[in-house]
Amino acid sequence: MEIHDSRVDCDLFSFTVLHQDSQSKARRGQIVTPRGLIDTPAFMPVGTAGTVKGVTPDQVADSGAQIVLGNTYHLQLRPSADVVEQLGGLQKFSGWLRPMLTDSGGFQVFSLAKINRIDDDGVDFQSHIDGARMRLDAATSIGIQNKLGADIIMAFDQCPPLPCDHETLVVAVERTMRWARQSKDAHQREDQWLFGIVQGGTDLEQRIRCAERLVEIGFDGYAVGGLSVGESHEEMIDVLDGLTGHLPVERPRYLMGVGMPRDLYASVRKGIDMFDCVLPTRNGRNAYAFTAAGPLKMRNEAHRLSDQPIEEGCICPTCAGFSRGYVRHLFIAGEMLGPILTTIHNLYFFQRLMKRMRELIPSGELERIPHEFPIVRLGAGKG
Amino acid sequence: MEIHDSRVDCDLFSFTVLHQDSQSKARRGQIVTPRGLIDTPAFMPVGTAGTVKGVTPDQVADSGAQIVLGNTYHLQLRPSADVVEQLGGLQKFSGWLRPMLTDSGGFQVFSLAKINRIDDDGVDFQSHIDGARMRLDAATSIGIQNKLGADIIMAFDQCPPLPCDHETLVVAVERTMRWARQSKDAHQREDQWLFGIVQGGTDLEQRIRCAERLVEIGFDGYAVGGLSVGESHEEMIDVLDGLTGHLPVERPRYLMGVGMPRDLYASVRKGIDMFDCVLPTRNGRNAYAFTAAGPLKMRNEAHRLSDQPIEEGCICPTCAGFSRGYVRHLFIAGEMLGPILTTIHNLYFFQRLMKRMRELIPSGELERIPHEFPIVRLGAGKG
Repeated sequence: MEIHDSRVDCDLFSFTVLHQDSQSKARRGQIVTPRGLIDTPAFMPVGTAGTVKGVTPDQVADSGAQIVLGNTYHLQLRPSADVVEQLGGLQKFSGWLRPMLTDSGGFQVFSLAKINRIDDDGVDFQSHIDGARMRLDAATSIGIQNKLGADIIMAFDQCPPLPCDHETLVVAVERTMRWARQSKDAHQREDQWLFGIVQGGTDLEQRIRCAERLVEIGFDGYAVGGLSVGESHEEMIDVLDGLTGHLPVERPRYLMGVGMPRDLYASVRKGIDMFDCVLPTRNGRNAYAFTAAGPLKMRNEAHRLSDQPIEEGCICPTCAGFSRGYVRHLFIAGEMLGPILTTIHNLYFFQRLMKRMRELIPSGELERIPHEFPIVRLGAGKG
Repeated sequence: MEIHDSRVDCDLFSFTVLHQDSQSKARRGQIVTPRGLIDTPAFMPVGTAGTVKGVTPDQVADSGAQIVLGNTYHLQLRPSADVVEQLGGLQKFSGWLRPMLTDSGGFQVFSLAKINRIDDDGVDFQSHIDGARMRLDAATSIGIQNKLGADIIMAFDQCPPLPCDHETLVVAVERTMRWARQSKDAHQREDQWLFGIVQGGTDLEQRIRCAERLVEIGFDGYAVGGLSVGESHEEMIDVLDGLTGHLPVERPRYLMGVGMPRDLYASVRKGIDMFDCVLPTRNGRNAYAFTAAGPLKMRNEAHRLSDQPIEEGCICPTCAGFSRGYVRHLFIAGEMLGPILTTIHNLYFFQRLMKRMRELIPSGELERIPHEFPIVRLGAGKG
């Protein structure tokens, strides 16, 4: 444990809170990794299988993203951690030569795979792709993540369904704490930060219990898992409100799988530093464009003759070069460029929102966000 | 007729043969259009529905392409010439602000649509998308192309099937000549070049008859249509060998819908200046990568652990940033980036081949091409 505590203070990695908002728990920070800086609060686009779907690494970087997430479960299924390792690790493999984070695989196992057996040590499951039988436990997850070589990796956890009965929740929390310890013990690489994951559903008591145990074990950062899985926005924010005070001020806090603009804004105000979500890319492929004023459905007949960009004033290459009418045409005609251009715009939009929050925290003006981005008042569904 | 002849000598457009190969009929030339230069021999990527499939206009331009083709048939069906016109014309609409060429729609009507009736004046057909009943004739085709606003437009023609009986062929040639005259009469815009299309299958007598009639009418350039539709490579080259001498030296010659690298090389040697083909893009989407040494099937197991680029020495962003192993993974995982990266490489490859031919013509060294690009010796099929 002490070895890890000294490691996080070495030159390779650091996290600094640059400004603490006086009006909320929001903070403006900076993570240093061997592959570059990450300004926080940060939004990580999701590159599930080693690619942010539909765009090149240059297009992702141009949007302002400083870190991308890869999914351990998907990468292990295809092409496997061994192949990624032999091809130079996830960054070289994917052409994204900047910071990356991999998740533990736990969430995907519980949401995608056919589970054959869960016990206190791990999960036996079958691949959702070809039915291959596999096992994931803390040592396996960390071993895979060590091979993938992301800059930040995640402890193996059990994400309980929501809602679930108290006993199921407690068992998942117990396992998550146990697996956190095992994950830390299994972690081999000095050049990777390891984050723990707090589970506990919407039960604040369980959340705090889990958080305290993780802090006791000691991690380089702390994630909040198992939210944005069906509970209301208010329930999610209530959990964060009660939880973040139990996480160390000097360590980054990462809310996994979140979210819509209003989730990002509200969570930043509760002290969250990092986010990942498929929304900008998945919704982009489905013709759903984010704008500060609210979403646009790009297939809509209303755009047919529109020579406006998706969003007036947006600096993304989509808005610089193409009209709503053209983007609509691409979707109607089934052309790949429709998803590509809308994904690019959405990636820029999410980075613009995060950048604006980072700008407003130091001056205590974060409450300007709902005026500049009315979309954060909307609870609109996932497109 | 004289009006057009004076128009083509005006400032807007010109074609200059810079070098005539002494070893073959190949020539190195340059077309000037209001939207930019086109170095010939030139290869035009196909942007069927107002987008080169899978890539942005910037990526197309970066590959070295100087002109892109749009399909009148597809654009009229979706989103319609009226919409394109209202959104500023095909270049502004598609974000490709450089030279464009539209075909007449004839080829697609005969290959894609359900034909209801062909007569000496035009074709009644039903859209392959929604069955809508439409008619295309010379005046309609030119009217649509005037609205689309490409820099070079094509006369309406009838492309006969190959093989076909002599009578069918003669009827198609007669109609093509008749429709060429009607196309020229219908053409309204001074800022668009109009090319005629020579039909006649593999019957050289019919080809020459058609060519002579088109020259009599007088066009800004001359296309060879109805090839690469099933005949052998040798038959195609024989037609060109016998035909190009009947086309004016001072006008660009365009071989439509061609082709594989060996077709391009052999046709350049017969005096062809322009080509278009879906091969780099369609094959790219199907994991078929062109290299000087021959094609690669990117799904192949052999690439699984390869850290080589698709083609050593290639300057494209795909080869600069990504391994064969990664590109293979993208295709196996069904990721959009696989088609995108392979399309980009293929677009660069086709431009590199054309550029090298343009470089070698002035020094009379065109026969170095088969040594530098062994792929031109291959008759490999369309992937």
